[in-house]
Amino acid sequence: MSIRRIDVGPRMSQIVIHGNTVYLAGQVGEPGGNVGAQTKQILAAIDELLAKAGTDKTKILQAIIWLADMSTFAEMNAEWDKWVPQGHTPARATGEAKLAGPEYLVEIIITAAI
Amino acid sequence: MSIRRIDVGPRMSQIVIHGNTVYLAGQVGEPGGNVGAQTKQILAAIDELLAKAGTDKTKILQAIIWLADMSTFAEMNAEWDKWVPQGHTPARATGEAKLAGPEYLVEIIITAAI
Amino acid sequence: MSIRRIDVGPRMSQIVIHGNTVYLAGQVGEPGGNVGAQTKQILAAIDELLAKAGTDKTKILQAIIWLADMSTFAEMNAEWDKWVPQGHTPARATGEAKLAGPEYLVEIIITAAI
Repeated sequence: MSIRRIDVGPRMSQIVIHGNTVYLAGQVGEPGGNVGAQTKQILAAIDELLAKAGTDKTKILQAIIWLADMSTFAEMNAEWDKWVPQGHTPARATGEAKLAGPEYLVEIIITAAI
Repeated sequence: MSIRRIDVGPRMSQIVIHGNTVYLAGQVGEPGGNVGAQTKQILAAIDELLAKAGTDKTKILQAIIWLADMSTFAEMNAEWDKWVPQGHTPARATGEAKLAGPEYLVEIIITAAI
Repeated sequence: MSIRRIDVGPRMSQIVIHGNTVYLAGQVGEPGGNVGAQTKQILAAIDELLAKAGTDKTKILQAIIWLADMSTFAEMNAEWDKWVPQGHTPARATGEAKLAGPEYLVEIIITAAI
């Protein structure tokens, strides 16, 4: 099965396509915003990356969500619930993990189908 | 490749099947129990979900385990070791992560084959 | 699609191959070393496991990295950047998580193609 990489950086690629499965790099939002704002930016970035990969949010298989502080769970979910396509919700898990810097409050790791 | 979702909720699906690969939502146990009790419930839930997907625990590919407190590692493993089918053990990784609420002590994220 | 397990232990397998996709168990380094030393050992172990699976680091799809202390991010990245093959970088995400014991400073979970 073919491997295709898009937005290839020296440390990681933003998109890796293997056959009909797409792996996205963990997405974070802009420093400065609260969890709601960062989640919104992340979900918009996911939409863009999935479009580049030739797919969309109705085909997400799995979402792993890391929150720097689990007390922001409801705030993250408010944005998620507005965005996630009904009838096509992915398998999901959310855990608390500090991220690459304290300015990052949420990170989402997506696996999707094409 | 087809996508099939089972136990589809507004926020996530419990089971997502893509071709021959099954992704389960992160499973947690009943609040109140200790790590051993919660792990037992989770493993029983995984058996049920895999059965709904048309597969079973001999076909698990990967298990990611989050413990709210790593000092409970041995207690979780005691249940895992009783349950996991010899000769068919999955790739596994365990890290400490606080979960959606302090009442949840362990969460397991499964990828399996059909 | 066939499932093949290699280095099968009673608790987990080090390698699980499903069709053209390989899942490795979370890899840790030798206790005692600093993050740089442990990362180097982990990356060498990943090379060996991928070779046993019939593939190599140019075919890694996804890497999930857990650091016991995010303040060692740069130290881990220094080893990663020397090792990761340019033009073939995987999707990657890094979060902070305490590991199976305090002597383990970094763990890497790999999914690759064959």
